[in-house]
Amino acid sequence: MAEKLTADDRTAQLAAMDGWAEAQDGKAITKTFKFDGFEAAWGFMTRVAIRAQSMDHHPDWSNAYNKVVVELSSHDVGGVTTLDIELAEYMDVAASQTGAK
Amino acid sequence: MAEKLTADDRTAQLAAMDGWAEAQDGKAITKTFKFDGFEAAWGFMTRVAIRAQSMDHHPDWSNAYNKVVVELSSHDVGGVTTLDIELAEYMDVAASQTGAK
Repeated sequence: MAEKLTADDRTAQLAAMDGWAEAQDGKAITKTFKFDGFEAAWGFMTRVAIRAQSMDHHPDWSNAYNKVVVELSSHDVGGVTTLDIELAEYMDVAASQTGAK
Repeated sequence: MAEKLTADDRTAQLAAMDGWAEAQDGKAITKTFKFDGFEAAWGFMTRVAIRAQSMDHHPDWSNAYNKVVVELSSHDVGGVTTLDIELAEYMDVAASQTGAK
């Protein structure tokens, strides 16, 4: 089980990332991704789904056509851990390579 | 463009379907699907994504591990049309074949 980040660590991590914000009173981090259309959005989600499954760490997320809203939290510790940061960073790379706007 | 169903038609269609309910004051229909785990949930979503793309009619939906919450609406007419019913019925078949609980 990954350890919960302190508020200071969380703030520092978020400051180094692009477009991620705290959610649920610091228990999660969130970002909205937009793509050219549904195909790109779905391609991004599928790539992340495979990584999430191999990490055994899954996002809470929603999709409406070209938009994907993600919320990451480590439910077992009730907060944000390095697993969430790792998945968030992977999402940023995958989104960028899928032409996220 | 598919025509918006009347309130009576919508009610009749929903009565004939399993687990679907009105949402957004009748402008959408919603259902929550639960699966054995993430793999099954994602398999279901992927199958529906392919169908949605071929229909050019896409769901608003969210996923958290084994749970998928779907909302269907025809945004171009601001309500529920036969396209939504068709996609809903497809989802029910796909979910059943994917072992939805």
